[in-house]
Parts: sequence; C-alpha cells; structure tokens
Amino acid sequence: MKTIKIGMLGIGNIGKGTYRTLEMSRAKIEQANGLTIEIVKILNRHPEIDRGIDIPKEKYVTDAYEIINDPEIDIVIELIGGIEPATTYMADALKAGKHVVTANKAALAANGRMLQELAYKNQLMLRFEASVAGGIPILNAISTALISNEFSEVQGILNGTTNYILTQMTEQGTPYEEVLKEAQRKGFAEADPTADVEGIDAANKLSILISLLFGIGVAPEKIPTKGITSVSREDISFAREFGYRIKLLASANCADGKVTCNVEPSLVAETHPLANVNNEFNAVYITGNAVDNLMFYGRGAGPLPTGSAVIGDVVDVARKIEKGSAYDLLPHLRYDADLQFAGEGANQYYIRLTAADHPGVLGQITSTFGVYGIGIRTMMQRAGDNSGKAVPMIFIVYDIEKSILTTALNVLVNNGSVESIDNVLRVLKS
Amino acid sequence: MKTIKIGMLGIGNIGKGTYRTLEMSRAKIEQANGLTIEIVKILNRHPEIDRGIDIPKEKYVTDAYEIINDPEIDIVIELIGGIEPATTYMADALKAGKHVVTANKAALAANGRMLQELAYKNQLMLRFEASVAGGIPILNAISTALISNEFSEVQGILNGTTNYILTQMTEQGTPYEEVLKEAQRKGFAEADPTADVEGIDAANKLSILISLLFGIGVAPEKIPTKGITSVSREDISFAREFGYRIKLLASANCADGKVTCNVEPSLVAETHPLANVNNEFNAVYITGNAVDNLMFYGRGAGPLPTGSAVIGDVVDVARKIEKGSAYDLLPHLRYDADLQFAGEGANQYYIRLTAADHPGVLGQITSTFGVYGIGIRTMMQRAGDNSGKAVPMIFIVYDIEKSILTTALNVLVNNGSVESIDNVLRVLKS
Repeated sequence: MKTIKIGMLGIGNIGKGTYRTLEMSRAKIEQANGLTIEIVKILNRHPEIDRGIDIPKEKYVTDAYEIINDPEIDIVIELIGGIEPATTYMADALKAGKHVVTANKAALAANGRMLQELAYKNQLMLRFEASVAGGIPILNAISTALISNEFSEVQGILNGTTNYILTQMTEQGTPYEEVLKEAQRKGFAEADPTADVEGIDAANKLSILISLLFGIGVAPEKIPTKGITSVSREDISFAREFGYRIKLLASANCADGKVTCNVEPSLVAETHPLANVNNEFNAVYITGNAVDNLMFYGRGAGPLPTGSAVIGDVVDVARKIEKGSAYDLLPHLRYDADLQFAGEGANQYYIRLTAADHPGVLGQITSTFGVYGIGIRTMMQRAGDNSGKAVPMIFIVYDIEKSILTTALNVLVNNGSVESIDNVLRVLKS
Repeated sequence: MKTIKIGMLGIGNIGKGTYRTLEMSRAKIEQANGLTIEIVKILNRHPEIDRGIDIPKEKYVTDAYEIINDPEIDIVIELIGGIEPATTYMADALKAGKHVVTANKAALAANGRMLQELAYKNQLMLRFEASVAGGIPILNAISTALISNEFSEVQGILNGTTNYILTQMTEQGTPYEEVLKEAQRKGFAEADPTADVEGIDAANKLSILISLLFGIGVAPEKIPTKGITSVSREDISFAREFGYRIKLLASANCADGKVTCNVEPSLVAETHPLANVNNEFNAVYITGNAVDNLMFYGRGAGPLPTGSAVIGDVVDVARKIEKGSAYDLLPHLRYDADLQFAGEGANQYYIRLTAADHPGVLGQITSTFGVYGIGIRTMMQRAGDNSGKAVPMIFIVYDIEKSILTTALNVLVNNGSVESIDNVLRVLKS
C-alpha cells in the first residue's frame, strides 16, 4: 500500500484535532482508498510544552524548513493561522514542489490569488476547505458536484462566536456584554474578541466564497462590514415581534456583471432555514441557476470538525497523487475580468429611532422618506401617553442604497423631527 | 480540447432538465476543466412526440442498445426510472465498458450492490448523486470531503411531495385529502401518489444512504415504513402546542454494530434545523464522529436541480477519464459483514388516544404504561365537563420499542380503559 507523507505546520488545537481525526479514520481511509496517510513531521516551536496528545517526540521539528525542504514529504498542512509567516511558508512549500492544504482564511483572503497562481505554475494543488465554515464541505461542493451552476447569491452565518452571542441574547434576553463574558469563560470567544465581533473573520471567509462562487477578488477590507456590538436587546425584541431573528450575515449577490456584498447584523424571517441556525453553528445558503437554493449547516470551528475538513482535502490530494492525476485546479479561486465590484448595493433595512410622541412627527418622517424614494414596508409605534415624551419607533423599508438612507436619516435628526437614530440593520428578503 | 461523449437513456422531464443544465453550463465546464461534454445520442421511443425542447433530431435513437453498444460513447446517463428495464440497461452498459450515471433510486435500492460489483469488476464508475435528495450534493460529500468520519445517524426529509402536503396542512390547516388534490393540480404529486404518501420513495432513498453511511445493505422493503395518510389536523395542532412540527422522517442509527431505521411521520422540535425545511424542499441531517452534526438543504426534485446533480457526476467522471484516472470507486455502497440490521429500535413516541373523561382512567393508562416500562415525558388532557364523555388525550413517552408500546396500547383498548388509539408517531430527540 502506498504511503503519502505529510508535514504539518502547527500543533495548536486545530493541529491536534487534525492529527486525532486522521488517527480515528486511518482504517477507513486505507480500506476505501488503498493508501496510507502518515504525518511524518510536525512543526512545534516549543517541544518542551506538554500538548496533552500522544505524538511520538521524534516527529517534532522546530524549523518549518525541515518540513518544507524535506524531499520525502508530499503534502504540507498549514495550521499556524494569521497572514505571516503562514503565507511565506505556503509559498515556499509550493515552490519546493509540495501540495498545500490549509485552514487559514486570513492568509487566503489576503494572498489567495498569488498562492493559487504559484500552485498553478508548479502543477500542484492548493486546498482550503477548512478555511470557510469549518467542517461544512461547501468549497468542495461548489467546485465539484455543483460545477454546472452559475451562482447569484450567498448568505452565510460564518462566525460561531457572534452567532452564539446573538442566540443567547435572543433566548435568555441577556445583554451583549454579559453574554460575551460568558462566551469567553466557555472558550467560545477569545480574550480579544475584535476579529469576531466586528465581523472581520466573517469578511475574510466571505472574500473566499465570493471568489469561488462568482469569480471576482474582493479584498476583505473592501467589504462593507458592521459587527454585532450595536445590536441591543431592544432590537432583538422588536425583530421578534415582526417575526424575525437577528443574525450576523455575510452576504453577496452577483447580477448584471456586478457583485455587491456586506457583512452586517441582519433580520432573518423566522421561517427561513437560516433562522434555526443557532449558537456556535454556521450555515451557508447559496443560489445557483440549476440547483436553486441550497443550504449547508454544521460546525464552523472546533478541532475535530476542522480536522474533518483538513483530512478530507488531504485524502483527495493523496488519492490524486496515487492515481498520477495530482494536478487539479479545483477548488479554485476564479477571476473574471468582466465582473465589477459595486459596493453594498440596495437592501431592505430595519430602522430603530427615537422621536417625540406628538402629532406631525410621523408625517415629517414619512414625507422625508418619500423625498429620498424610501418606501415603508412596516412601521410600529408603541402607544405613548400623548405627553410629547420621546418614544421608540421601528420602520422596515424597501430596497434602498444605504448611503441614501443615511442621508435621509441625517436630515431627520438635523431638522429635529427625530431625536436619535438608534440602529439600522439589514433585512434579508425571503 | 478533449470531447467526452454521452448517451442518455430517457428524455422525460429529468432528461430534458439534464440536457438544459449541460447547455447552460457548457462554457463554465470547458473553462474550468479543459474538456467538452457532448450528449451525442438520446433514447426516445416516441420521436414523433413534441418534447418542447430544441434537440437535433439526429441525436434520437429508438433502441437503447444503439447507445449501450456504441464504441464512441464514454458515459451512459440512465434517466428512465423504475427497476426494469433500467437495471438491465445499466448492467449491459457496464458490461460494454461504459461508465454509468443514474438518478434512479428504485433500481439502486433494489440492485445497487450487483451494479456496483459489475462496475468494480470492469474498472468503471457508477455514480448516482441525483438518486437521493435531487440537487443536494450529499453523496459526493459523504464520499469525499467527509471521508474521515464514521457516521452514527441520519435524519432525512427525502420526499418533496409529502413535505409539501404536511407543510400546507400545518400552515393552512387544510385536511390531507384537500391538500393532496391541490398538490396533484400543481404537479407536486402524481395521479397515483402511493409511492410518495406511503413512504416507499423515502425508504428507497434511505436504503441508499444507509449503505453509503454505515456499510450495510438494508432492502427498502425491510425498512419499517409508515406513510402520512394517518396524520390528521388534530395531530399537527397538538404537536404545535408542544412546540413540534410533523415531518415524514427517514431515519437510521448505527451503534454497537447494529443498524436501526424507519420511515415515519415524526415530531421535530420547532427549534431544530429540520423544522424549517418546508414545502417541496428536502434535507439530510447526519452525524459524524469528527464533523458532528451537518445538514444539507435544497430541492429534492425538479428537472434543473436533478440535472445539476447528474451533470456534477458526469463532469467528475469526465475529468477522471481525461486525466487517465477513470477508475474510482467513490461514492460507493459499502457492505460490512460485521454489522447487523436490528429493525426499528427504541424511539420516543407521541400517542393520541380517546378515553372517557372520568376519574381513574388516567391512573389505568399510566399504571399499564408502568407495567411495560414506558416512561411518560409529557401528557395533555383538555378540560372536559366531567360528564364521562370521551376526550382526546396526548402522551409523549420516552424511548421504547414500538412492539412493546403497541402491546401496551392494545391492552388498554381491550380492557376498556381507552376507547381508541387515534395515532402513534415517532418523536425526534433533540
């Protein structure tokens, strides 16, 4: 039986999960594929630390280049994370003739095109299923079973930390800060939660999905991104009254040669399949011209689910090496020169504002909306006591560019019709 | 550019959808894979009928063996449906050296093992993504990206007709017969709906999933199967009061070397991802030891979604032919001699019965349940007028073998404690 030799960069939680997943599935892989996969070297800069996993010490190396330059190694698995030195290691591995499998969304979103061109030039495979939505096999599906589709839309719940926080706020009625602290205690959120709660992690993953689905490179920093820190218990409660849940959605559309996208807390109808994606789970909802709507749901993080995706890629590459058909572009980041990036596009929005409870206010708001072409779909005002005190008002408006909406809302604040704009959130059409 | 030549058996709705899907995606497939796929011959027994699709007449043949024995043809797509003559055609195509792609769940559930052994012996590929859950790429995922997992559970909504009927009964409160007639008018149900409403179609698909996931052949006629005709508006309404939706679930578990399964209308908690799978949509929810819970949602039928799955298989086979690595077992039906089929297993059940509203009745029921080891999780009795008239009572009981439950319920009817057992439905644990 042929043995495919692997070098693994990194032995943190994901590295350990990948190692364990391979140990768990070794017999099945041998039986199904007639080949053995062996992790022969592991980069471990601190071999003195007890990693809590039974790995023979002689596999550990302290220099990445002992793996990258080892002529016996067929595939390099990169699990260090972050843009550098991961990108350099992956590029050098490809230059040294190794296939590369990675879970690194940040490095791919930043340097995916360069790495892919390098793989292409050297007739090698670069695979990255684990970089988007953890264990969910979405990239493989897009690139193989769904190859006959042109895709027009993606809606993703791509960050487990924020989905956990929003679910707990919804179910327990607990405020953001309190749930964040609990998530940090449980290990669902990092000590510095910025990349998660500000939507940066989701934007990295969306950038990879946009390239795979539509064929255009949109750098994550160009994706209009809003985190969940502004979402209040009031928003969640008003959304429920209208029949919605609030989710941090990473969204993109492709139509008429234009791609629009954003990452933003969004209202999702409670009957939509995305509405029941709760806690740390992820989901990717896509629309293709043949297959129509599809959703993939599962764990977006965690050592074993991520290990499942990494080993899935490794086995596919190994099978192709063994069958002598190793060079295979898929899944590949596509770049179509005719496509344009067109920002955030028009969306429905939910607006929560505070205004005085006296006659004429609603007229001022609705007529200003009218001037800017903003159509009102639903509105709600709680019964006040007619004392002129400020009360909350909720509007859901039809498709409008956010810049126009922002201008109209500023006019209302500046002319005194409205006391404050408390939140503006996207509404997913259903 | 290499051309892979296809012969297609059948030009009904699925055949036309497959032809259209290939036409729509030809440019993308050529660009991504560097090969051309051409459907060169189509079996059409009635070329005089206008099929409403622009296909050059010279492609049509009236004898299947003009395709099966054509030395120029690389892949045969079988879209006739039914067990025969489809099985014979597929077997003869494999004997003639053709790879086979099919959407035929009935032929695969009946003869999958024989066909697969024939493919294996002749070093050919047999692919069947479209046979389970239409456009949803579940078989491909199980066989490739998820290869590192041992699976323990599957829950499927695998039949669009019954899911449409149950959704409409739930949302509109319309009785079964009325919704069925409406579904037949809309083309969502056939004139003879037996195979759908009695769960036979779902059992065929479950048989294929069980083989792929667990490695045991369970013939569809051995799967305990109950259709939806017994589900009443009362059941749907009581289920909602307890926080459940009723879905026709195709379920299987594998633990301790034993596989249990059934197809049965089941109560699904409204917060479960399967609860929001509505109308004609399908979903497959699986649990693996590395990836944990995953769900795939999409259209389980229809010409273009099915065409998407068929063309996905065709492109994968074509790429392997072109790369000279054509022989590839995956996805494959597995057979593990150590596994045992153990029937339906223990489940939670919902019981709706009618009993006289007088003191002592509840005591008789609960003590009989106790004798048979049946634990009560929830029960509900509507307030009666204490006149002794019969009233409906609802129980949800903990895990129990259905045969034991049936015995206990018979005892209650026979000794007069209960007037009638009106329905018994499985409850999905969540």
